[in-house]
Amino acid sequence: MPEPSGILEEMTIDDLRELAPNVAVIPLGSTEPHGPALPLGTDTFQTDVLAKRATRLARERGARVVCYPTLPITLNNNCRKFPFACRVGVRTFMSMLTDIIEQAYADGVRRVLILNGHGGNNETVGALMRDLAARDDVPFVCVTSGGMASPEASAMIEHPSEHGGEREASYQMYVRPDLVRHDKLADNPRGQATLPSLRNPAVQFVRPWHAHVPVSAGGEQRKASAEKGKAIIESAAANIATLLVELSEAPESADFPY
Amino acid sequence: MPEPSGILEEMTIDDLRELAPNVAVIPLGSTEPHGPALPLGTDTFQTDVLAKRATRLARERGARVVCYPTLPITLNNNCRKFPFACRVGVRTFMSMLTDIIEQAYADGVRRVLILNGHGGNNETVGALMRDLAARDDVPFVCVTSGGMASPEASAMIEHPSEHGGEREASYQMYVRPDLVRHDKLADNPRGQATLPSLRNPAVQFVRPWHAHVPVSAGGEQRKASAEKGKAIIESAAANIATLLVELSEAPESADFPY
Amino acid sequence: MPEPSGILEEMTIDDLRELAPNVAVIPLGSTEPHGPALPLGTDTFQTDVLAKRATRLARERGARVVCYPTLPITLNNNCRKFPFACRVGVRTFMSMLTDIIEQAYADGVRRVLILNGHGGNNETVGALMRDLAARDDVPFVCVTSGGMASPEASAMIEHPSEHGGEREASYQMYVRPDLVRHDKLADNPRGQATLPSLRNPAVQFVRPWHAHVPVSAGGEQRKASAEKGKAIIESAAANIATLLVELSEAPESADFPY
Amino acid sequence: MPEPSGILEEMTIDDLRELAPNVAVIPLGSTEPHGPALPLGTDTFQTDVLAKRATRLARERGARVVCYPTLPITLNNNCRKFPFACRVGVRTFMSMLTDIIEQAYADGVRRVLILNGHGGNNETVGALMRDLAARDDVPFVCVTSGGMASPEASAMIEHPSEHGGEREASYQMYVRPDLVRHDKLADNPRGQATLPSLRNPAVQFVRPWHAHVPVSAGGEQRKASAEKGKAIIESAAANIATLLVELSEAPESADFPY
Amino acid sequence: MPEPSGILEEMTIDDLRELAPNVAVIPLGSTEPHGPALPLGTDTFQTDVLAKRATRLARERGARVVCYPTLPITLNNNCRKFPFACRVGVRTFMSMLTDIIEQAYADGVRRVLILNGHGGNNETVGALMRDLAARDDVPFVCVTSGGMASPEASAMIEHPSEHGGEREASYQMYVRPDLVRHDKLADNPRGQATLPSLRNPAVQFVRPWHAHVPVSAGGEQRKASAEKGKAIIESAAANIATLLVELSEAPESADFPY
Amino acid sequence: MPEPSGILEEMTIDDLRELAPNVAVIPLGSTEPHGPALPLGTDTFQTDVLAKRATRLARERGARVVCYPTLPITLNNNCRKFPFACRVGVRTFMSMLTDIIEQAYADGVRRVLILNGHGGNNETVGALMRDLAARDDVPFVCVTSGGMASPEASAMIEHPSEHGGEREASYQMYVRPDLVRHDKLADNPRGQATLPSLRNPAVQFVRPWHAHVPVSAGGEQRKASAEKGKAIIESAAANIATLLVELSEAPESADFPY
Repeated sequence: MPEPSGILEEMTIDDLRELAPNVAVIPLGSTEPHGPALPLGTDTFQTDVLAKRATRLARERGARVVCYPTLPITLNNNCRKFPFACRVGVRTFMSMLTDIIEQAYADGVRRVLILNGHGGNNETVGALMRDLAARDDVPFVCVTSGGMASPEASAMIEHPSEHGGEREASYQMYVRPDLVRHDKLADNPRGQATLPSLRNPAVQFVRPWHAHVPVSAGGEQRKASAEKGKAIIESAAANIATLLVELSEAPESADFPY
Repeated sequence: MPEPSGILEEMTIDDLRELAPNVAVIPLGSTEPHGPALPLGTDTFQTDVLAKRATRLARERGARVVCYPTLPITLNNNCRKFPFACRVGVRTFMSMLTDIIEQAYADGVRRVLILNGHGGNNETVGALMRDLAARDDVPFVCVTSGGMASPEASAMIEHPSEHGGEREASYQMYVRPDLVRHDKLADNPRGQATLPSLRNPAVQFVRPWHAHVPVSAGGEQRKASAEKGKAIIESAAANIATLLVELSEAPESADFPY
Repeated sequence: MPEPSGILEEMTIDDLRELAPNVAVIPLGSTEPHGPALPLGTDTFQTDVLAKRATRLARERGARVVCYPTLPITLNNNCRKFPFACRVGVRTFMSMLTDIIEQAYADGVRRVLILNGHGGNNETVGALMRDLAARDDVPFVCVTSGGMASPEASAMIEHPSEHGGEREASYQMYVRPDLVRHDKLADNPRGQATLPSLRNPAVQFVRPWHAHVPVSAGGEQRKASAEKGKAIIESAAANIATLLVELSEAPESADFPY
Repeated sequence: MPEPSGILEEMTIDDLRELAPNVAVIPLGSTEPHGPALPLGTDTFQTDVLAKRATRLARERGARVVCYPTLPITLNNNCRKFPFACRVGVRTFMSMLTDIIEQAYADGVRRVLILNGHGGNNETVGALMRDLAARDDVPFVCVTSGGMASPEASAMIEHPSEHGGEREASYQMYVRPDLVRHDKLADNPRGQATLPSLRNPAVQFVRPWHAHVPVSAGGEQRKASAEKGKAIIESAAANIATLLVELSEAPESADFPY
Repeated sequence: MPEPSGILEEMTIDDLRELAPNVAVIPLGSTEPHGPALPLGTDTFQTDVLAKRATRLARERGARVVCYPTLPITLNNNCRKFPFACRVGVRTFMSMLTDIIEQAYADGVRRVLILNGHGGNNETVGALMRDLAARDDVPFVCVTSGGMASPEASAMIEHPSEHGGEREASYQMYVRPDLVRHDKLADNPRGQATLPSLRNPAVQFVRPWHAHVPVSAGGEQRKASAEKGKAIIESAAANIATLLVELSEAPESADFPY
Repeated sequence: MPEPSGILEEMTIDDLRELAPNVAVIPLGSTEPHGPALPLGTDTFQTDVLAKRATRLARERGARVVCYPTLPITLNNNCRKFPFACRVGVRTFMSMLTDIIEQAYADGVRRVLILNGHGGNNETVGALMRDLAARDDVPFVCVTSGGMASPEASAMIEHPSEHGGEREASYQMYVRPDLVRHDKLADNPRGQATLPSLRNPAVQFVRPWHAHVPVSAGGEQRKASAEKGKAIIESAAANIATLLVELSEAPESADFPY
């Protein structure tokens, strides 16, 4: 394994000074119900593995990248009628990320990749990036997710789901098999809007998840497997590593990344 | 024309009391450069026409809908290297919309449609809706745009563009023909990211618009026409009107809109 | 008419670069009930006309002035017991104006005139200016209103009123005659404080407008006319234009405007 | 002297329970330069005396009024080019007053009189009152100043001044004669705006006080006397006491004070 | 007495310019119930005397120190079930102090001593200092209290108490003997947590003061005397003066105070 | 092991509903340099183990307690001259904790124990608790740390240190032995204030850690051992478990915990 590892929590100050990172990965997990078969930490566990794997691959290719600890509590207002959908407010979340990114910049980071493992964070990470776009004293920031896996890897999932379906079950079978309740895997129900116009994808709104996925996970999970989980995570990690290498190698310029 | 018209600025207090709106449309315009051929008010002008048209159509079908004045200054951090890309901050914008929506709720509105005429607002409107999802004392909020036009109408545009292209030029030829500089219509250049991984749609970031569309408008405009503009606006208005009618007629329920 | 016109929404980026504005006008409208005879958009409509007229006159005299779009939703807490007294919060409003002024400064504006068409904004615009007075990186900011009309012009109004009286009715007859309900013009009632000491002008408080002007407009309106409206607006516009010319021509100095 | 005195800092908890105040006075002082002859605490000293005197007079007439300690540091951005123009920010100041008023309300106060001894606070106190007007769970708030003195008393001042003139010198001769430097009393210079339009009272802006009153006090001070100071303070105190009595006696009502 | 005195409110602008302070004392009082024998202003009165005394002693030794007016309203959420425990919010308080410290820095102060006379402020002053530690453009800030008295002086107090006991009664007998109700001096009751683990000093929480000191003062007060009060204040003032002298004399350095 | 485990991330929604927690543990870690021998995640790793161990012990005794994921990024302004002292701002941190505590309360938690593993958070957690003390709609909140270990266990540490000394090295040898660089264990230098008065414990300030512990860890580490680490953590966990049991069992009451 390359040294320093790039895993921030596991390095010493000497490791850090040797690495002198110019790219940072900030992984976003989440803690909220994922149905009867999967643990509340599902998003955190899988994102943590993906972020570290991508970082190590990028380190092997020489990227000066550092991976922050995975933030375990992010946004979940939409799930608030489930118990312990842990959350901070939208403005708090933006402040958390802003503060962390400012620290990274002060320590030499010029590009940040937010690795988002929780769909509920998407718009707000977007809003945060747009907020930072007003400033010249912050790094370039981009965001991606497990969606970086290749189409082939993603196609292994037979039953797509936004939350707690085959894909997330496969991830957990790979990263935390001890926590998967196999006897509870099921084809969980999903609701939808009653107004026809609201089903038009050109209209967007925050769905009430207690009505959208009533058992807090939705869709058919029983085709999940650790193999699928591993394949997708490996594919995503490889592509993210390439992004990290590009980010680390690209020279600074006024119009970056153009 | 049905009375009251539903156009808030044009009604009196008596009109309002007669209408007793339960749905509000909040149109979002923008004021920022749109290249040498189109005015800075492009987004505001076209959104204002679309919002009012949809409102009038919905009123004809009995919807208790009120259309707010179009907000002319929204988000433009990405365009800040162009002159007079008018803007408020991301947090300010969220506060503006929150305050207006709270007023609407206090006055009986139970569903709000944000009609967004400016792409730079997308994520932040999403973040706002997610913020409001923490509360029980606000209306249901959804967002749409001119993208509500039918696929057939949209297909009239031969050269798609995100900003200041054939579509927006067509809109202006319909709504403010006096302001279109026909001699400046052109095939305006567009840039792109130099890092291959950043062209993957699974990675998102705020593009520097001065590099993305160097003359502040991008793409081929010369096939624009008032007829196209009218057709698309009419199509979008009709579909939005249907949404407004559905929103006005649907009973209140705990899990609305499910 | 001089080119570029100075009307921001109507100009292109090339116009803006030619004009290179050093003065900005930010007009503040409002949307709130103005009684049975006048539309909710009364403040916005009249302020928009006044701001554009003054800008054009100043442009004719060479001022490098740009007129922003009129903000249609400002402060109305005092009117909140009327329906649809549209409003943002005091802190939100201060942030909106601060953000817009910062943008103007970044683009070369060194003097800002806030043209306030709504009495409910007075103190808060004052507080905003005082807040900005802590900074060196903002323009000089001043505020005025239709009160810039000459004493002669103002004296045409026979029945003064703070809200929705002869003066505002005259304005609307001039700028939006289609929206005036002539059959509803009346001598509308006005209330006052019951405590004698509170009638002393040395004591100030926010009046509850539902008690102060119970029908949401106060005073005798029936002597209103389009002629009066035009005369006052023309007079105010001429005086504001002179102010804009002076602001544009005065050299920058540390102690400006002293 | 009536007991309890109404002077909050001087009472015990038993006094407070006996008094059960329904009206509170919140005096606003300031600490900033007042020229070579007067101390920085000028505004605080005179306001403290006035507030306590008015409170005692109102207590003698049975008002259930409590006088808060005088806040010594308020707003002074306009004076920031003088040394030690002590200040908090505009938003901080609004929060301070809001918090204090909320405490008073929680303890039974239903009417608040802000007694403002510093001109730099005027607009922001107005903005604060307008902010509070959005809420039903706060007291009625009004504001006044030494301007409550009778016209006769005020007319004793031969040379009006906004800052550190005959009036303030007279106050200090009465309340803190030990701190007045008689040898430094003078006719201090005052500046004015160089642009003619900015001298029109219909235009408002924050004056740069280092240019407006270059020695940090302005106008002729040498006709000041303790007698004048006492007479004005006594007159203002009497009128303020009457206001406090009215505020304490008036029944609660939905539309108070109408 | 040395001139200028260092007491900010009592100096003129000329005094200030002569002194050119590089150290500031910001005294924090409080206004809240202190039981039946002591006034609500207890904390403010004693802190004001201590701060001024220490400042004068430091001035005699040449320190360029300025003493701000004592802030009379600080934090009291823990006491909110007593009447008129005057307070601002934690964030407001941090903003107040930040703003004042920024002003001091702008006027040449490089070291600030917060002299805290109210235990309820301790953690928040600590949090404030930690917040300021993120910045290079603020003074060095430290905090102390009457706890600076020598062990010998402090040992004169026979019955320690956190609030309104022998120590505070002694202070008041010295600084405001007119306000002490000798007939109400008593051994006031004190409560404690019912859970054994919460009595472990390694666990901290905000105690509900209405249960902790039910009459709003706790412990035996009857051995209080003005002599004790004077001795402790004199001792603390002498030690604080030494600190102020050291702060004023120490050269500026990057790692100050190391 | 008792089921459900109480470890939030590892439970499913069904586990949570079975447990119905009334007590929550919120562990605070930190990511910042701990010298050449220990990893940046030191605080997080040890706090995570301690929190989970205490929770499991409390669960064995029937407490309805849930342990949140350990927050890995908290406060570090004092360490900002070391690289990657990861941090959020003081206000952000208060908002994070407030939001999380509000969520816990909404889901039935009535007592919260913040388990703080990072000294830099102490005052701000205190300030947060004081902020929450203004509200009736939040749980009782208390805070503790590894300092809950018995005096006997703590006495095993021969060389006390505030940061990265024998105690923390012993913890890491127990919880993450793979990350300890035994060859780098040393007696690391510690600085101190140069002003004598600043060494008085009655004066507090934020120490510049780059001067206080120049290699980012201070004191003699070489007597550290996994046995010591285990003994202290076990002792602290046992005492914290007792606290959790008491918190879970105590009935709700108005004056809790008195």
